[in-house]
Amino acid sequence: MADAGDRVKVVTKDEAVEGVLMPSEGGKVVVKLESGYNIGIDKKKIKEIKVLEKYKKSEPAKAKAEAKKGLPTIAILHTGGTIASKVDYRTGGVVARFSPEEILELFPELKEIANIKSELIRNMFSDDLRFDHFAAIANAVEKEVKKGADGIIISIGTDNLAVASAALAFILEKCPIPIILVGAQRSSDRGSSDAAVNLICAANFIAKTDFAGVAVCMHENTSDNTCVILPACKTRKLHSSRRDAFKPVNDIPIAKINYETKKIEFLKKNYLKKSKELSVKPKMEQKVGLLKITVNMFPEQFLAYRGYKGLIIEGTGLGHTPLHVVDESTKIHEKIKDAIKTLVDSGTIVVMTTQCLFGRVGMEVYSKGRDLQKLGIISGEDMLPETAFVKLAWLLGNYPKEKVKELIGKNLRGEISERTDVRSTL
Amino acid sequence: MADAGDRVKVVTKDEAVEGVLMPSEGGKVVVKLESGYNIGIDKKKIKEIKVLEKYKKSEPAKAKAEAKKGLPTIAILHTGGTIASKVDYRTGGVVARFSPEEILELFPELKEIANIKSELIRNMFSDDLRFDHFAAIANAVEKEVKKGADGIIISIGTDNLAVASAALAFILEKCPIPIILVGAQRSSDRGSSDAAVNLICAANFIAKTDFAGVAVCMHENTSDNTCVILPACKTRKLHSSRRDAFKPVNDIPIAKINYETKKIEFLKKNYLKKSKELSVKPKMEQKVGLLKITVNMFPEQFLAYRGYKGLIIEGTGLGHTPLHVVDESTKIHEKIKDAIKTLVDSGTIVVMTTQCLFGRVGMEVYSKGRDLQKLGIISGEDMLPETAFVKLAWLLGNYPKEKVKELIGKNLRGEISERTDVRSTL
Repeated sequence: MADAGDRVKVVTKDEAVEGVLMPSEGGKVVVKLESGYNIGIDKKKIKEIKVLEKYKKSEPAKAKAEAKKGLPTIAILHTGGTIASKVDYRTGGVVARFSPEEILELFPELKEIANIKSELIRNMFSDDLRFDHFAAIANAVEKEVKKGADGIIISIGTDNLAVASAALAFILEKCPIPIILVGAQRSSDRGSSDAAVNLICAANFIAKTDFAGVAVCMHENTSDNTCVILPACKTRKLHSSRRDAFKPVNDIPIAKINYETKKIEFLKKNYLKKSKELSVKPKMEQKVGLLKITVNMFPEQFLAYRGYKGLIIEGTGLGHTPLHVVDESTKIHEKIKDAIKTLVDSGTIVVMTTQCLFGRVGMEVYSKGRDLQKLGIISGEDMLPETAFVKLAWLLGNYPKEKVKELIGKNLRGEISERTDVRSTL
Repeated sequence: MADAGDRVKVVTKDEAVEGVLMPSEGGKVVVKLESGYNIGIDKKKIKEIKVLEKYKKSEPAKAKAEAKKGLPTIAILHTGGTIASKVDYRTGGVVARFSPEEILELFPELKEIANIKSELIRNMFSDDLRFDHFAAIANAVEKEVKKGADGIIISIGTDNLAVASAALAFILEKCPIPIILVGAQRSSDRGSSDAAVNLICAANFIAKTDFAGVAVCMHENTSDNTCVILPACKTRKLHSSRRDAFKPVNDIPIAKINYETKKIEFLKKNYLKKSKELSVKPKMEQKVGLLKITVNMFPEQFLAYRGYKGLIIEGTGLGHTPLHVVDESTKIHEKIKDAIKTLVDSGTIVVMTTQCLFGRVGMEVYSKGRDLQKLGIISGEDMLPETAFVKLAWLLGNYPKEKVKELIGKNLRGEISERTDVRSTL
């Protein structure tokens, strides 16, 4: 009889699957594969479940982490994701292993780099992040800065890691130390996890450079040799599963870190240096939306955002929406035009970005763009749509409306480049 | 005194701009730059407008295109975009130059490749495309096939070029000849335009290979040497302005064409060959939407699609939405869960894709994905969100609901790859 937590081989008519048995869900037996991923197998299809190895409960770590003189202090704030958690195979739940002792047990190399402190802020999927969580993280950052941390690592789920880095870059208006967001595309309890490399490269970067401010540290490519430090507001998760999913968009990495040689190479010379000043502005306007443009749209898709304080449009190409009446079937575009006008007239700040992701909005190029500007839509320049989204919410939380309109197209935290072409990494 | 159409130098306090004067708009003087782009300059800021060269009206082409024996017949169907149109500098309007004579005058190399026929279907921004236009294009394709064309080039605006190629791939269920969509990122009336290279490579590909079906032909890189033939359903505009903006996503190009040597190299061996069978199914369900997931969402953003027959969700990562209640601020996620349930229960087919663009949806990996599947959301596998959108509309236009649910996750036109990793071009 196989119990959750046992190493098993599940045999069906079509295949044989090896892994750790998880608590079953509905009519499915769930197996955690060596790859770190779970698969659900229909109970009806199963011929046999062989137990390969019974589950043994591991002992919690006990060794006390001792502070070493001369090493910097790094605080790790955990918000969720797989990076510093393990699956409890008995319950199927993710268990945060988050005392300093447990962190050091998982990643012993950290002991040589820094004195590690740690705090569990949340243990959540980053898909469930709301603006309030960005404020909670910023408050925890503020406390650690005041207690004298030399740097902070925020471990977080990868889905919204880049969005969180952009939000924190705005919230931490003045940031005296490095705040590095780190995630893992593969869970920590498997050999091929990217967690350790990302975390250790981030710690080395914090310990050995004078960089300050918010940034991301993730794999540069599919090998485990190098990580890149990516700009907080110009980074995007561009692959659903690869370890090198995070890419700079309309920008270049700030630095590269070789995991083995520990060599750090700065690709940008102009970055914020460590300082004494801290200024935290955690307020964000709740009612901000994002509307992605498609063919064949209807006015109600726009009007759904009536009453919102801000709306990011993810337009096509240089920043376009359906708008012009060409023939009978496009008569509905008059109503889309009216809908956009209704939004703007009722006080929604509407900002254009491009769903191309790479490149810049250019609303002067075609009459389409000029017409959209006449309706009151503001150019988002070369901002990522997701960055524009959190920036607009943050501006609306902290400035009067006219100031928001002025600042949305101005570069505040590296979210807008002066020129796009030369920096594009596409 | 400068008139529209004149070559001018506009001098302001800050800069001097050279180009062709366009009709002014509001308080702005508009100048078409050598780059092909227009800029608007505030009249108040202008110190002087020098006329460099007065406008001369060009004569319309008169030479009759003569059919050459032994050459294939290619029909060019124009729907809009800059590729085969010129700006009338006097009115500022875009003028389609679309008789066969005018096409050959613009692109004389075509004469050596094929006998060219041409038809003006529409002259519109591709942002304004609706499903009815895909049907109109498909009908024109059908007519040309029946009249014996050996291949068809569809010239179209780039913003929705890739979306149109996917839609046409579904509509043209059986397609006996090559249908190649071609656009230009820079207008035809400037030296550095990409229009000629894209068009001539497409014509050569049609004339010299046995390929059949829908595909895209655009620049491979920023040089003018090579074009790529890209798969209809797995291509995306990934840069707002670069000539090599079109990239295959989770796939590779079908072929490469060297513009100068005319050499064609197939990268895919398995492609549809020319045949006799034609089957056109132009119906598409109108009420289909696309919702991109962000942090901090509200249930009404989901409920805006109540009554729609289909909804594509562009989820985070492996295919996620906000859903779980973690703390006080995430209590609203219960209502998002209810909203998704309301949509599914009221008959909307809801399909998950990933905003990462590269990679595959994996809804078995985390409890989040499994919970979303329990709510009735169907995995869109590794389809591009835009491809999933037109596929869902097309399926709903042609099949009963249960069949739509079955076919949305099955590969019909190369829109779903069996494995993603090895084919990714990120």
